[in-house]
Amino acid sequence: MDLTDREKRKQVTQTSKPLGVAVVGAGYWGPNLVRNFQAGEGFRLRWLCDLDVERAQRVLGSYSTVQATSDYAAVLADPEVTAVAVATPAGTHLDIALAALRAGKHVLVEKPLAATYADGLRLVTEAEERGLILMCDHTYCYTPAVGHIRELVRSGELGEIHFVDSVRINLGLVQKDIDVMWDLAPHDLSILDFILPAGVEPVAVAAHGADPIGAGQACVAYLTLQLNTGAIAHVHVNWLSPTKVRTTMVGGSKRTLVWDDLNPAQRVAVFDRGVDLASPQEIGADERRDMLISYRSGDMVAPAIGEKEALRSMVEEFGAAITGRRAPLTDGRAGLRVLDILEAASRSLEFKGAVVGLRAGH
Amino acid sequence: MDLTDREKRKQVTQTSKPLGVAVVGAGYWGPNLVRNFQAGEGFRLRWLCDLDVERAQRVLGSYSTVQATSDYAAVLADPEVTAVAVATPAGTHLDIALAALRAGKHVLVEKPLAATYADGLRLVTEAEERGLILMCDHTYCYTPAVGHIRELVRSGELGEIHFVDSVRINLGLVQKDIDVMWDLAPHDLSILDFILPAGVEPVAVAAHGADPIGAGQACVAYLTLQLNTGAIAHVHVNWLSPTKVRTTMVGGSKRTLVWDDLNPAQRVAVFDRGVDLASPQEIGADERRDMLISYRSGDMVAPAIGEKEALRSMVEEFGAAITGRRAPLTDGRAGLRVLDILEAASRSLEFKGAVVGLRAGH
Amino acid sequence: MDLTDREKRKQVTQTSKPLGVAVVGAGYWGPNLVRNFQAGEGFRLRWLCDLDVERAQRVLGSYSTVQATSDYAAVLADPEVTAVAVATPAGTHLDIALAALRAGKHVLVEKPLAATYADGLRLVTEAEERGLILMCDHTYCYTPAVGHIRELVRSGELGEIHFVDSVRINLGLVQKDIDVMWDLAPHDLSILDFILPAGVEPVAVAAHGADPIGAGQACVAYLTLQLNTGAIAHVHVNWLSPTKVRTTMVGGSKRTLVWDDLNPAQRVAVFDRGVDLASPQEIGADERRDMLISYRSGDMVAPAIGEKEALRSMVEEFGAAITGRRAPLTDGRAGLRVLDILEAASRSLEFKGAVVGLRAGH
Amino acid sequence: MDLTDREKRKQVTQTSKPLGVAVVGAGYWGPNLVRNFQAGEGFRLRWLCDLDVERAQRVLGSYSTVQATSDYAAVLADPEVTAVAVATPAGTHLDIALAALRAGKHVLVEKPLAATYADGLRLVTEAEERGLILMCDHTYCYTPAVGHIRELVRSGELGEIHFVDSVRINLGLVQKDIDVMWDLAPHDLSILDFILPAGVEPVAVAAHGADPIGAGQACVAYLTLQLNTGAIAHVHVNWLSPTKVRTTMVGGSKRTLVWDDLNPAQRVAVFDRGVDLASPQEIGADERRDMLISYRSGDMVAPAIGEKEALRSMVEEFGAAITGRRAPLTDGRAGLRVLDILEAASRSLEFKGAVVGLRAGH
Repeated sequence: MDLTDREKRKQVTQTSKPLGVAVVGAGYWGPNLVRNFQAGEGFRLRWLCDLDVERAQRVLGSYSTVQATSDYAAVLADPEVTAVAVATPAGTHLDIALAALRAGKHVLVEKPLAATYADGLRLVTEAEERGLILMCDHTYCYTPAVGHIRELVRSGELGEIHFVDSVRINLGLVQKDIDVMWDLAPHDLSILDFILPAGVEPVAVAAHGADPIGAGQACVAYLTLQLNTGAIAHVHVNWLSPTKVRTTMVGGSKRTLVWDDLNPAQRVAVFDRGVDLASPQEIGADERRDMLISYRSGDMVAPAIGEKEALRSMVEEFGAAITGRRAPLTDGRAGLRVLDILEAASRSLEFKGAVVGLRAGH
Repeated sequence: MDLTDREKRKQVTQTSKPLGVAVVGAGYWGPNLVRNFQAGEGFRLRWLCDLDVERAQRVLGSYSTVQATSDYAAVLADPEVTAVAVATPAGTHLDIALAALRAGKHVLVEKPLAATYADGLRLVTEAEERGLILMCDHTYCYTPAVGHIRELVRSGELGEIHFVDSVRINLGLVQKDIDVMWDLAPHDLSILDFILPAGVEPVAVAAHGADPIGAGQACVAYLTLQLNTGAIAHVHVNWLSPTKVRTTMVGGSKRTLVWDDLNPAQRVAVFDRGVDLASPQEIGADERRDMLISYRSGDMVAPAIGEKEALRSMVEEFGAAITGRRAPLTDGRAGLRVLDILEAASRSLEFKGAVVGLRAGH
Repeated sequence: MDLTDREKRKQVTQTSKPLGVAVVGAGYWGPNLVRNFQAGEGFRLRWLCDLDVERAQRVLGSYSTVQATSDYAAVLADPEVTAVAVATPAGTHLDIALAALRAGKHVLVEKPLAATYADGLRLVTEAEERGLILMCDHTYCYTPAVGHIRELVRSGELGEIHFVDSVRINLGLVQKDIDVMWDLAPHDLSILDFILPAGVEPVAVAAHGADPIGAGQACVAYLTLQLNTGAIAHVHVNWLSPTKVRTTMVGGSKRTLVWDDLNPAQRVAVFDRGVDLASPQEIGADERRDMLISYRSGDMVAPAIGEKEALRSMVEEFGAAITGRRAPLTDGRAGLRVLDILEAASRSLEFKGAVVGLRAGH
Repeated sequence: MDLTDREKRKQVTQTSKPLGVAVVGAGYWGPNLVRNFQAGEGFRLRWLCDLDVERAQRVLGSYSTVQATSDYAAVLADPEVTAVAVATPAGTHLDIALAALRAGKHVLVEKPLAATYADGLRLVTEAEERGLILMCDHTYCYTPAVGHIRELVRSGELGEIHFVDSVRINLGLVQKDIDVMWDLAPHDLSILDFILPAGVEPVAVAAHGADPIGAGQACVAYLTLQLNTGAIAHVHVNWLSPTKVRTTMVGGSKRTLVWDDLNPAQRVAVFDRGVDLASPQEIGADERRDMLISYRSGDMVAPAIGEKEALRSMVEEFGAAITGRRAPLTDGRAGLRVLDILEAASRSLEFKGAVVGLRAGH
């Protein structure tokens, strides 16, 4: 991340008064937001709103001073509420977030930003016109590991990016409304968007999938992204795997790193191993091609990386963006770029793996 | 494998006299064949033939009674030579194997069977017309692990096959003449061919690849195979990975197994975990869709599997096929099926991932 | 565990009214108790008491209706307080727990039960005389894994216990008042006490340690326990290890299990592998000794084990013991048995590893 | 190791003629020596000698020009035999090696050097008096990993050694004549002897063991060694473990390393993590004790280490010692030091874990 934790905390604590915030949605993700908004000093959690007020009350428990409600209008009417965090199904993001923006609230939206690119664009436009923060909760981008990876990539320590390979598989809840790609790939795509250096970006995607259990939508999917540099990125998502794997490899011309999110003792490993190809200038014109190739077999370094909870950092970034009047690290446009790839991948899936181009210049 | 080790050994040892054999090619793979032909009792190794006779001599070492030669004609003229094992570059397989068949020798060929499907077909036809054994050295099929997996799949213990996901990556030798797909995927494709039950087969393939280091051919590739049952198989091969991964997951309707070839303590793990979907008959017509889905979270069993060297079993199978006058487990037609997929995958790569259909009825 | 989760919950929920409880100590462990007493329905948390009332307030946070206090007398005077949970330094356990018992409260004490065996005995006696529950928070005994191991051992599935080997090492906080043995070994010793079948128990202990950094007390220690059956148990605790290991192996005559608490995907693995020795009756008198020995090389099974938080189950057991008027699974006497071993081990350490006998019949 | 591979090879290849060598013993270990003496250029293998000449012939196979024999006298009488390698049971080492030395041959002996310290001393004395090389085949010392560890320790990169913890357990062959300690601990003790810097050495040992299966000797054993610096070393050897573990941790004041011999992808990991204690000079006299302690949480580096076969390097070292007329890295005295510890440990086992002092000044 661009800001160190200390710097971000400073920005937040410069605010004399914590920001009033409401969480909408007491389902799977909402409770995590509730906990983290309560943990820091930048926010004061005022409401937990859910159509099912009893569910909201259960999430808060019987020891809390926070108010549960099913009356979203009342939440928006509360002048102490500066920001709204939306953790409802993707299909409802547009209406809920739009209402909040129109009520002058800053908005944090769970991934994916919206159900469609068009919906997402309406949110981005609305927020920009009103000068409000619209942030997408790309949680993984706030893990210490991904922050470190971003630094390694952007500082040039890996060299040019050659390939990215991401695997996110486990026995997952088969969703009713969305396929495995929309359920899991937003994580990998938002991370990719977050770590790639300026100027490097996906330009096309192909997707292959299968629904071998007859669930009505893909339960296994493979996405291949072509980058504008000739590099390749690949994402494997799978709801049917009995083992859990969450590994991303980022191959560079200088070094290659492996991020294994399930190995707390060694989440990131940076390998000084690889294949080198001398550039033509360096060798005589008539030297044989295989003279060009050499292999490095160097050390591996597993950098010391802290263990701070990602959601805590995400919530702090939301607060810092509001008080600092600046775009958050994962703003609405980042959410849009992810939606663009997901839509193109769905189209590719429909057309049996045909390559589909992405929009340019979000 | 269909035959137990004991049965196969019996067949071999029924032969009163070991089969005379010659190995052609003293490069990377030849020495392994030399060692294994010497280790068993079914064969008598007579020659190691290489254009570079000094290389052949070096492979044999200074304590061996086996003859090194560069004179292939002399090898074929030796009446004591019953069989020839070819471990030369793929481009030379056709000529060398054809000459051996025409000299009446049984032939074992290193994978891939030939440089093209057409070449491979000529070898298969020639062998069939002459009633000679043509075997393809799909070594991995003879590992105890793959033998066990084949049994698990074919006995129905996994149920219907839902997906197969294979990863074979490491810092590999960038080849001059063939890309990473032709170098590594034959392993995964021959295993797939070996374990799939009768009637289940790939019908189309799409391949995506990249050459980020400018090596002149793909160094990273992803193959997606569509099976005739709606299942999906996927192969990831990569020469640029600093870590070595050799993992295959076979997902079934009843159980799912993970084969990790680099984990000798637990090569195969069979998980009784998965997603079940009740068949329509089992539930009332108006019950909701999500009533159909249930999750199993059962035990994992890592079966005791022996550690016999695959090449040793492969060589024994070659001997048993010759003496038993029967097709070997991995015959020329198995080699042809793998070539068919490789050629289709190359075509797909050329056309940016377009799906390419496979031949039927090899 | 003897009771299934469902049964225990039933017992708790039979109570018409939750039990009032107070937590004493807002340091390292207290917050976990606070969270878990709030999470279930069996208890109503009324107080968090700490000499430093601001620390107690910080632990509760700014959204809680629970009262923070530094006035322990007021807590004990509260008639709504049925039970007290003590999470203060071991040296203070005697006074705090004794006061609670004398005020007629049931008491839960963090491990170790007390600073000395004598102190612990006073607590046990006091509780027994007053007919109050005295429970020791041997948290690990309430993990699903240890519950499962206890069942495997006690049901005879492992056969007779041959050896227990426990490793608990990581870069740990060097304590001021206690050495690494008193800090970490209570976990292993309480687990051992919990899983061993009736009639099997340690009879002597030897301890070796070192203080290579000059911290003033042992930072590395090895305990060897002799069991009354001839079996051996060994515990390795270490504050200086840069890697974290938490593995316990329980070797039995029929099967051997390995518990790796840091491997959530496979915490318990039961191996049907081992060395068998035929009993003399089974073989002729003059057969050779090595005929007696045979090796099993069977499957490994990793049973499906839930992921329920141990502290939650521990708190439920405390509630069930109070309402059911029965001894909890880890009662004061279990705490005493652990103290006995720790004191003997300290004596052994003092005398350079001399074997020290344990008390009998706690 | 002190010499790089290149330097050693040079020394060997300076010899105009390979050294004639005979291997005695065609049991478990002999075949490995046979293979490695044949592989290099420093030696010419002339004989494989075993009381059971057919076994020797089987080991050589039917393609070898090496002579099998059961006539040890003939071997010793062969003037072309410069060196003898002994791979027979420990109880026979004295006679076989002594005869070879008296015949003027250099001798390599499998570990342990002899059945007793006294026997070992006779061999050392005989060799020294005759000016012959006596080398003990402490194979593990010649793995690239242990060579690297020795360098890290001796160069001071780890700082002062604080503790060494070694675990070598698996389902092992229960031996008739020796217990698990004499079977497996020589590996760990010879490694310890090899890596410790000059002046640091064990001074006493305590051993605890058990024979829970009634095999007639300890099948599980724990050795604790006290070093002259106050550091501690511990070895856990076990024949009854269904899982194989071969891990050694070397804790130092600056860094701590973990060697996992079963993890080829990362055999050695060097952690820049630990507990630091400021020396009294650095802090004011009245500062509190806990000011002295600080924690490092730095990177981990897994150095690139080659994969050369240890026995190959061992054989080369034997050749280099002979031609260079210098003591080999693991000479007879190293074998003696290991025997001293083993004998003391056996005495400790007999006396239930009593601490037994070691001899000084071998």
